[in-house]
Amino acid sequence: MAADFSLTCPVPLTRHSTVVMGHGSGGRLTAQLVRELFLPAFDNPLLRKLDDQAVVDVGSSRVAFTTDSFVVTPLFFPGGNIGELAVYGTVNDLAMSGAAPLCLSAAFIMEEGLPMEELAAVVAAMSTAAAKCGVAIVTGDTKVVNRRSADKLFITTTGMGIVPEGTAISASNAKPGDVVILSGTIADHGMAVMSRREGIDFEGGILSDTQPLHRLVAAMLAAGELHALRDPTRGGLGTSICEIAGASKVGVELGSSAIPVREPVRGACELLGIDPLFVANEGKLVAFVHPDAAGAVLRAMRDTEEGRESTIIGRAVEQHPEVVLLKTEIGGTRILDLPLHEQLPRIC
Amino acid sequence: MAADFSLTCPVPLTRHSTVVMGHGSGGRLTAQLVRELFLPAFDNPLLRKLDDQAVVDVGSSRVAFTTDSFVVTPLFFPGGNIGELAVYGTVNDLAMSGAAPLCLSAAFIMEEGLPMEELAAVVAAMSTAAAKCGVAIVTGDTKVVNRRSADKLFITTTGMGIVPEGTAISASNAKPGDVVILSGTIADHGMAVMSRREGIDFEGGILSDTQPLHRLVAAMLAAGELHALRDPTRGGLGTSICEIAGASKVGVELGSSAIPVREPVRGACELLGIDPLFVANEGKLVAFVHPDAAGAVLRAMRDTEEGRESTIIGRAVEQHPEVVLLKTEIGGTRILDLPLHEQLPRIC
Repeated sequence: MAADFSLTCPVPLTRHSTVVMGHGSGGRLTAQLVRELFLPAFDNPLLRKLDDQAVVDVGSSRVAFTTDSFVVTPLFFPGGNIGELAVYGTVNDLAMSGAAPLCLSAAFIMEEGLPMEELAAVVAAMSTAAAKCGVAIVTGDTKVVNRRSADKLFITTTGMGIVPEGTAISASNAKPGDVVILSGTIADHGMAVMSRREGIDFEGGILSDTQPLHRLVAAMLAAGELHALRDPTRGGLGTSICEIAGASKVGVELGSSAIPVREPVRGACELLGIDPLFVANEGKLVAFVHPDAAGAVLRAMRDTEEGRESTIIGRAVEQHPEVVLLKTEIGGTRILDLPLHEQLPRIC
Repeated sequence: MAADFSLTCPVPLTRHSTVVMGHGSGGRLTAQLVRELFLPAFDNPLLRKLDDQAVVDVGSSRVAFTTDSFVVTPLFFPGGNIGELAVYGTVNDLAMSGAAPLCLSAAFIMEEGLPMEELAAVVAAMSTAAAKCGVAIVTGDTKVVNRRSADKLFITTTGMGIVPEGTAISASNAKPGDVVILSGTIADHGMAVMSRREGIDFEGGILSDTQPLHRLVAAMLAAGELHALRDPTRGGLGTSICEIAGASKVGVELGSSAIPVREPVRGACELLGIDPLFVANEGKLVAFVHPDAAGAVLRAMRDTEEGRESTIIGRAVEQHPEVVLLKTEIGGTRILDLPLHEQLPRIC
């Protein structure tokens, strides 16, 4: 249930008699659907945490368990494809509990008429991505549906990973005083998909940031204590921070100018009227770190390929619990709240 | 990769430049796709077994891991719905390794416009089904795609289960001399979905057999040694037996008259020109059992609710390895081979 809830939403949401695109946005409607329909039906302590993964006891081991369906369109976009997303996305959801990936499953729903060449290219990309993560795809499933009963190809990957002893990372574990560290620029993935989908060639070129993050997390764990971790995929950085603030009942203060956005991405967002804070990333993480450990963790992050551009973007505070404040560049303050509607559908 | 391969297929299959419905049949085209595309790309020892689940070592525990996407249409059919199938199907794939279910994940792909009432009914059915199995849905995902980019609702469930010590059940572990036991009537599920889809009201009524099988398997394990187990879902009993014969390199001889088919189901199959041997079941299993244990296992099966109609249907033999012979009721012998084409698309 990645990025699937918000406790910062004060207004009762409109009831819907059918599923609408916004229910898949990772924003307020998704949160409502999860809170009002799925959570009451399936209620149990692990699901209630609404972390990106459940951590299950198996003998004396703690096993992280996570699943995601990938429905991105188009299947291939600048900097990546659905196959890489499916592998890295699940490896990253495991990593957000501190877990190293143990194995993956992959279930394919294919539309009749899907060119075999495209399927083969996606499968080859998954194979390369899995090898890059040192993880095997050990079981799977294939289904075919009639034309117009699916859009080419959907992939659901599920992962198991081993959580190191002594680790207790959770969206509900952030503490006042924690330093908020972001591992690099935001909104690259969403705008890369958007540019390909809309056929817009933004100046400078925009590439998806899709990459695995488990090695970055391992380096961070070795450097100091981590309280909360999220990879801000669907819903973007803004949603992840709001979720952590809500689940941990802390306030958060962010500096807008501290949040790095590549120039062409910023330009594209301005052109299309899209807030980069709520655009999907596929290779970044945000961490809430004990202030005594923040320096060491930041240095460890910058020493990795994936975290070279890591930077401090804010701090958790005792004041205004569950509320995220963004200090704007002109000195104002904005309350960060989840968008109600879908900014960019089918981004992952 | 349930029901996804056949070593009995002697003829080179036609190459396809696009995915066709037959690639999802669980028959020869599915087998070809898995063997020629997925297996070479993802190759690893666990996947190569092509069991319905992978068994992964976690500390000193053996964890069964399995995934399936459910794309059945309609969502509700006589005797069940997609939600029950998604829970029982994954519990049963775990059970086929002897495992008791530990936890499930569920990923939902919803079509824009799906009535919220239908979604709620499916989710409620999943909740009841999970409770009936004593298993929790501990993590999940929700995605929404535009109208005509999916057909209402697809659900992918993945399960973890603990394999009891000393158990080594595998499709590749059948031995000559093994007794083949079937837990009840065949083809109920497929013909129930078919009757609802085609709006045919068969005399006598036909209900899906969807039910969990882990308690039946536990009773069998307590009674004696099991070599191979399969729940003959997509592809039916014929496919499961051909797969076990192929993977274990044994011959199999079946008595056609020993295989129970309910009268209305037999009538419906005859009317529609469908072979019940290749029609999906969702609450039956076929077991290859050491001959010394067969009597005790059969009695234990009949003592359970799920296995009350269990019966011996044949035997594994040394002769004609990988070939399945069916003795017909009029005294002839037919070689059982997987159908090339789709009999009943989107049955699970």
